[in-house]
Amino acid sequence: MYMRKLTQTVITGHDKAVVQTKAGKVRGAIVEGTYIFRGIKYADAERFHLPHDVEPWEGVKEALVYGYVSSQITTGLAHDEPYVPHYLWPENEHCQYLNIWTKSIDPEAKKQVMVWFHGGGWSGGSSVELYAYDGNSMAEFGDVVVVNLNHRLNVLGYLDLSNYGEEYKYSGVAGLADLVWALKWVKENIKNFGGDPDNVTIMGQSGGGGKVLAMLQTPAADGLFHKAVMQSGGARLSWDPNQRKNNQMVADYIVKNLHLTKETIKEIETVSWYDLSAAVLKTIYQLNQEGKPLPMWSPITDDDYYYGNPAHTGWRKESLHIPMIVGSNLGEMAHSAIFQLPQSKNDYTDEEAYEMIKEKYGDKADAIVAGFKKAYPDHRIIDALYTDISMRPALIEFCKDRAKNATAPIFEYMFSFESDWDGGVTAWHNAEEPFMFHNARYLESAFVPGESDKLEDAMTTAWLSLGAKGDPNNDLIPEWKPVEADKSNIMIFDRVIRSETDFDDELMAAYPPPGPRVFPNRPKNYSRTGVDLEI
Amino acid sequence: MYMRKLTQTVITGHDKAVVQTKAGKVRGAIVEGTYIFRGIKYADAERFHLPHDVEPWEGVKEALVYGYVSSQITTGLAHDEPYVPHYLWPENEHCQYLNIWTKSIDPEAKKQVMVWFHGGGWSGGSSVELYAYDGNSMAEFGDVVVVNLNHRLNVLGYLDLSNYGEEYKYSGVAGLADLVWALKWVKENIKNFGGDPDNVTIMGQSGGGGKVLAMLQTPAADGLFHKAVMQSGGARLSWDPNQRKNNQMVADYIVKNLHLTKETIKEIETVSWYDLSAAVLKTIYQLNQEGKPLPMWSPITDDDYYYGNPAHTGWRKESLHIPMIVGSNLGEMAHSAIFQLPQSKNDYTDEEAYEMIKEKYGDKADAIVAGFKKAYPDHRIIDALYTDISMRPALIEFCKDRAKNATAPIFEYMFSFESDWDGGVTAWHNAEEPFMFHNARYLESAFVPGESDKLEDAMTTAWLSLGAKGDPNNDLIPEWKPVEADKSNIMIFDRVIRSETDFDDELMAAYPPPGPRVFPNRPKNYSRTGVDLEI
Repeated sequence: MYMRKLTQTVITGHDKAVVQTKAGKVRGAIVEGTYIFRGIKYADAERFHLPHDVEPWEGVKEALVYGYVSSQITTGLAHDEPYVPHYLWPENEHCQYLNIWTKSIDPEAKKQVMVWFHGGGWSGGSSVELYAYDGNSMAEFGDVVVVNLNHRLNVLGYLDLSNYGEEYKYSGVAGLADLVWALKWVKENIKNFGGDPDNVTIMGQSGGGGKVLAMLQTPAADGLFHKAVMQSGGARLSWDPNQRKNNQMVADYIVKNLHLTKETIKEIETVSWYDLSAAVLKTIYQLNQEGKPLPMWSPITDDDYYYGNPAHTGWRKESLHIPMIVGSNLGEMAHSAIFQLPQSKNDYTDEEAYEMIKEKYGDKADAIVAGFKKAYPDHRIIDALYTDISMRPALIEFCKDRAKNATAPIFEYMFSFESDWDGGVTAWHNAEEPFMFHNARYLESAFVPGESDKLEDAMTTAWLSLGAKGDPNNDLIPEWKPVEADKSNIMIFDRVIRSETDFDDELMAAYPPPGPRVFPNRPKNYSRTGVDLEI
Repeated sequence: MYMRKLTQTVITGHDKAVVQTKAGKVRGAIVEGTYIFRGIKYADAERFHLPHDVEPWEGVKEALVYGYVSSQITTGLAHDEPYVPHYLWPENEHCQYLNIWTKSIDPEAKKQVMVWFHGGGWSGGSSVELYAYDGNSMAEFGDVVVVNLNHRLNVLGYLDLSNYGEEYKYSGVAGLADLVWALKWVKENIKNFGGDPDNVTIMGQSGGGGKVLAMLQTPAADGLFHKAVMQSGGARLSWDPNQRKNNQMVADYIVKNLHLTKETIKEIETVSWYDLSAAVLKTIYQLNQEGKPLPMWSPITDDDYYYGNPAHTGWRKESLHIPMIVGSNLGEMAHSAIFQLPQSKNDYTDEEAYEMIKEKYGDKADAIVAGFKKAYPDHRIIDALYTDISMRPALIEFCKDRAKNATAPIFEYMFSFESDWDGGVTAWHNAEEPFMFHNARYLESAFVPGESDKLEDAMTTAWLSLGAKGDPNNDLIPEWKPVEADKSNIMIFDRVIRSETDFDDELMAAYPPPGPRVFPNRPKNYSRTGVDLEI
């Protein structure tokens, strides 16, 4: 939902903004000249089964309200809320809904289509979870068709029950198949929403980046998209040679916790969501107690539906022609740490910052400071404390590997713009979204008069240029060279937008290997169902 | 959260927008010149006990994020979402949080304070549930201090456990006491937020209207507020001579469903929210099966903490000096019916509408049409099908009764403005909120260029004038006469704002008595906990 000052009557009604889809007619709203369709069901699915087409209907279905988002095991006040405002929405496992923003419903308009996969790993989030990725501004600014969607998450999307019967063969990729089905819906229907079914760009951030990469590795998605953008995620997609074995062990625990057996397994499709999620929580508790691997919800890699992360299983040659933008943010998890400082980050002097770096990194401090000053001459050295050293090295390798193998170019970026929010916070996970979605002017934590406007124009234009012509270059940025097999050509999105090569190699080499990620401000009991995690 | 185009840097930081409260310092944000403090804890409470002051703290607490809203038994996609956009938020029984909007934090500023009690009966909703009542615009437009708040709802706020021990004496008014505590917090702290503790107006809609009325009947709230606004609710506050007896019966069922007894009752304070809400749902199911009265969550009337609805227990003389605005909307539940029409309401001709009225009301049709044309000469007669006949007659009586008894005036209104949303929908429950909060320009279903702007200026000014001087009259409206003991003087807020007397007596007399309220589009299973209501 957009809360902006309106200047025109919003046009709605039974015979307004009506569009014919394959299954039937839908009606949306025209808001400030943009058609908005909320909550179109793109597929139906039984629990733990592949999705299928929805039943055709007579008459006109209303598309004014977002559809259910996927049921989630746990949720609560997000630790990053001050930086990344959230929008919660009712949950239901029948969540195959998409939303569309478009300035035309002329079937001959054939505007490029930008599809957004939300983040939250493969276990949380939704198409509307963050204000930052509301599709309205991008559709208006670029005159393109924007689509986002919900799909099955966590146990609902990625529990491998194949040991319990042939009919559950694809239960471990059910939520991934929802994504394919959404793209199939776009292919078959977007023409009537003014879109070009033959020019679809998929984009995603964090878990959504992983989803974009997964589409490249999924045969069923071939031909359904033409360009891809992977933001702050994907390259380090958790991959475990024992993924299937571990997931099947998790399945055994969950089945047992539900008091089911191979004979009664069919009941797992109808137990209440509460009982199912409680069985998951109990399983996590048990695995923890027994020192066994915890469930890592993600699609099951095999040689059939999903080929897995290319870092481990190689690139599928059928998607090597897809041009890509790939990148990450300077701080990524910085806000979790900065949030806990007793004063604003930029209130520390460089001397104090140096002492803090030395305390944390010992004799590596000088190399880190030198590397940081070289890579980010316009930043305070305190940012060296909060520089992402987890995602970035993996991304450098990822891009070079893609450059080595693909026939289409891969364009890499670093987002290091710092707003004035909370006295300065190193660009956090999700911080780039308001900019490539042209929403920075709406977000308290992003807007900087005269600065964020320029940057959001440049970034949104670059993303849309990739969609339009497979190349992000445009008049608002310096020349953006694709990554080469041995050269990290990169665009740095900051107050000054600059193009560099291998700019942070020394910095990355100076850091020790990263430790585990922590979310220190997450409330202890954050289960929406009221089930305490420490059951 | 406001999603509006920004023009200035949002000011935040450890030493920015810091205000001293009785218990410690809080820091907010300055957005477009308005200080916003989100999620200040105004009280703490153990389950089923009265609230108490929060523990003092050292340092500065962040107030950038809304606090938890009260746990709710059931929730889901609201049936009225297209008309009344919702904003959901994480739930927790420890929900005594308030939010403040103010343009000054000068202790000498002494601006009038407007406190909003949210709707949703005494069982649902939150301070941030509807975009329509975001406090920012009112604070900016009127240069006043706006406060809204969460408090305990449903079983958490109004279960009478007094039979289980002296310490639960007030469990049946715990959520009401939260409201008192919030007003006490305002009294003790609002000066440092630029507010005048001696000029506080309480306002509420629907259930919130009931809460406003309850404050007039609660001795502990005396002196904590000075004017009152009651919108579309309160007058018909459910009152049952057997309220306490029925509530105690409900308590017995719940205690039993939790496998507790008088001896083990203390455990009811620590069972998980899931178990408690499941016990409530089971109780509802059992009472339904047994044909017994269902729980009506509302504060327990007695001669001690809460004196009950004046329609039944008389007006407390200690609050007869409080000036009031009271009113309702033409359609109230209209959207639930109009939503199901096969075409837009205004696509029916007057002839078709007459046939529909005749079909519904038989030989009363002509009197209804005549009464409607007299009361609403500028409306299509189809609105006679959707005119509220449930709340309005009770309100007329309520206002006259107050006029007869009170020393301060009571001003009555009818909101009948129809926007162009969905081809025209008779002014629905909540439709007036965007106007008195000066938010109509932000809401798709409210905004009408050149019309809604004028009306929101007039209504917000009237509400604030009541707060400023105990009289809503101002330059933007005709003379607004208070209700008299035998005369319904009323202000009609529509495209033309007009002042009338006894304007709809004939219309109301023409209708048959109202049937029960229905919510036909509510999903069958709308339990957020995943518990099916049909357990």
